[in-house]
Amino acid sequence: MSIVIGFETLDVRFETSALLDGSDAMNPDPDYSAAYLRVRTDAPDGLEGHSFVFTIGRGNDVQVAAIEALAQRVIGRDVEAILGDLGGFWREFVYDSQLRWLGPEKGVMHMAIGAVVNAFWDLKAKRAGLPLWQLLARMTPEELVALVDFRYLSDALTPEDALAILRAAEPGRAEREAELLATGYPGYTTTPGWLGYSDDKLRRLAREAVDEGFLQIKLKVGDRLEDDLRRLRIARDEVGPDIRIAIDANQRWDRDQAIEWIRALEPFELAWVEEPTSPDDVLAHAAIARAVAPVRIATGEHAMSRVLFKQLLQADAAAIVQIDSTRVAGVNENVAILLLAAKSGIPVCPHAGGVGLCEAVQHFSMFDFVAVSGSRDGRMIEYTKHLHEHFVAPVELVGGRYRAPLTPGAGMEMLADSLSRHRYLP
Amino acid sequence: MSIVIGFETLDVRFETSALLDGSDAMNPDPDYSAAYLRVRTDAPDGLEGHSFVFTIGRGNDVQVAAIEALAQRVIGRDVEAILGDLGGFWREFVYDSQLRWLGPEKGVMHMAIGAVVNAFWDLKAKRAGLPLWQLLARMTPEELVALVDFRYLSDALTPEDALAILRAAEPGRAEREAELLATGYPGYTTTPGWLGYSDDKLRRLAREAVDEGFLQIKLKVGDRLEDDLRRLRIARDEVGPDIRIAIDANQRWDRDQAIEWIRALEPFELAWVEEPTSPDDVLAHAAIARAVAPVRIATGEHAMSRVLFKQLLQADAAAIVQIDSTRVAGVNENVAILLLAAKSGIPVCPHAGGVGLCEAVQHFSMFDFVAVSGSRDGRMIEYTKHLHEHFVAPVELVGGRYRAPLTPGAGMEMLADSLSRHRYLP
Repeated sequence: MSIVIGFETLDVRFETSALLDGSDAMNPDPDYSAAYLRVRTDAPDGLEGHSFVFTIGRGNDVQVAAIEALAQRVIGRDVEAILGDLGGFWREFVYDSQLRWLGPEKGVMHMAIGAVVNAFWDLKAKRAGLPLWQLLARMTPEELVALVDFRYLSDALTPEDALAILRAAEPGRAEREAELLATGYPGYTTTPGWLGYSDDKLRRLAREAVDEGFLQIKLKVGDRLEDDLRRLRIARDEVGPDIRIAIDANQRWDRDQAIEWIRALEPFELAWVEEPTSPDDVLAHAAIARAVAPVRIATGEHAMSRVLFKQLLQADAAAIVQIDSTRVAGVNENVAILLLAAKSGIPVCPHAGGVGLCEAVQHFSMFDFVAVSGSRDGRMIEYTKHLHEHFVAPVELVGGRYRAPLTPGAGMEMLADSLSRHRYLP
Repeated sequence: MSIVIGFETLDVRFETSALLDGSDAMNPDPDYSAAYLRVRTDAPDGLEGHSFVFTIGRGNDVQVAAIEALAQRVIGRDVEAILGDLGGFWREFVYDSQLRWLGPEKGVMHMAIGAVVNAFWDLKAKRAGLPLWQLLARMTPEELVALVDFRYLSDALTPEDALAILRAAEPGRAEREAELLATGYPGYTTTPGWLGYSDDKLRRLAREAVDEGFLQIKLKVGDRLEDDLRRLRIARDEVGPDIRIAIDANQRWDRDQAIEWIRALEPFELAWVEEPTSPDDVLAHAAIARAVAPVRIATGEHAMSRVLFKQLLQADAAAIVQIDSTRVAGVNENVAILLLAAKSGIPVCPHAGGVGLCEAVQHFSMFDFVAVSGSRDGRMIEYTKHLHEHFVAPVELVGGRYRAPLTPGAGMEMLADSLSRHRYLP
């Protein structure tokens, strides 16, 4: 038996705003940041659990404070008991009768729960000597169902439904794992499309994306329609007719404005339109989706919980579900969302970029392919070029495809040197 | 011109869990707490702006940290410029391009914005020598509309709609203000109904509520159906047929379970059923409301933002809107929600209780009566007996009705002695 003997939180920030990397219609100047957590045990293996919540700068200190408040509660706890029942561990935090008031299940406190839960997933995967995707993909359907909390989901997904989905995918697991290891998982790139980039830079990066083998790029839109039209024309000219172009409004529009704007951009054959309006507005997303069909609406990077994803799916408000590794309460909740999406037959194309999100979220898509949806069709993982060099196991892309990571863990561990060099001091 | 010269935050907690005051199906052991903010200026009047976020114990420290992070940004600022444009001040925080990532517009960070905004509303009202309700009720329709952010609301409420509502209520303002000062505003009491109370205590408190003049009481339900049936029978026997009984499930049920449970309790003639399921689940609330009609569904105390209230109203998911003083981002957002409700013709019956929520939220109902909906019909403010003695201007109830407060300010100021005696030291 081993014991949790300590933890450390770190406020880590990168000055990405200086280069307008990551600039969009609502986030003109992000400083990609991580509210970072490292958990230590007294086990002789010396393994640590690492995780973080991604933020974009100011407020990262508050996110750190929330993680710290929760992490204090695991000191002295039995590690094997936690790792043996990560479903119960998740519930313990999410249903804490007093903490719940601060959400419930949303915002700073919910993301902090995610960080704590994910640190133990990282530790569990390291102990198993497996990358997270493989650890999950080797669990039995019953073990996976036990991770998920079905409260508020039962009108869309019951434990029986989840079991049926997972059992149906069981026979082909080994085959798909081999296929994944051989051919990877498709990525698409947002690197060309930041709103702060010049037309020349957009053109050059769009060309590079095609040369690198990406079959889809994404452009930020929503600031000025004439800019969007010009930039889409440049991008389409540059990549040709066969490369897909998605656009991302980052919540910029109101409902009716979204409909009008998307109709104006439709001639460019959009792969999808992302975050047209408030991420919390299920009804507006549904109305937009109906009005602009067959153009497809994508959302999820700011979707706070499985309850919101459930509604987006129930209302046919999203044709593509974009999970994020650190927005919801950790691995368990993302497994729930993968199951909800599989039940609805809707593809999951994760949000990534930022700092470490590519490294983290790839595990969910790969697990989904091997053990949940069983498909890569119409699915891909977002990719941007930023900040991979700070991670112990940076993502590897070959020909526009993510290679399946083999390093044990959840992929969130940063290099000690990067942690200390980019530690934020107010 | 005066300048913000300092602020103080305090972690204030009361050990209410010891007596099971405030116990319900999801919150068995709340310790009513306040993440408290006090803002000082260099003006010779010596007036301070006081506000708080209500929480129920653990996590109050994180809420304090969030308020502190935001409050630092007002040091050195021009007080008159802030007070002269509280709409702009609200936007400055809610649309901070980096902080927005931590919500957007939900949870710890959004409530912290509310605390900062409300401290300045308190100061503005004190400077005007008016209670908040009267300050708001004397603003012009144009000034009130300028407080509200209409982003994401325009599919339900435009600035023109809001102006029309406020102008329609303008002629009767003076008359209704006089009526309010003379006769107060109806309250209802939750004091008898906490789930942790014995049957005898329920019976005694229900009788006392009727004796005190309340025309409605509320019971917590949702733990065990047989208990709910027994407790409702006791309450109905005790109060007779003419007193209304509302019930509150505090998010305990899933959709279909809610429908079944409410149908079982329907014979007791329920005034409303509160928070049947996840506060974020617009679609489930709508489905429940349709299934149990004519029983009315109420929600809002955990509704995170105006965007959620908008959807609840659009989907006919709530027949009663229960605003809370410290859940959303301050006075401005509650004004927006009052306008949304008025547009839909839905009564607002605020959530109160906790610590200081009665003192704070009464201002919104009174402002609503004088200058927005123009009506008290079917409207009332929740009341519980806890902790009023800690406030500079505790609520006064006469015959089950709130007397209109006359003390200048937003009602949130606690006594210095209470603040120091109940300061929480970990």
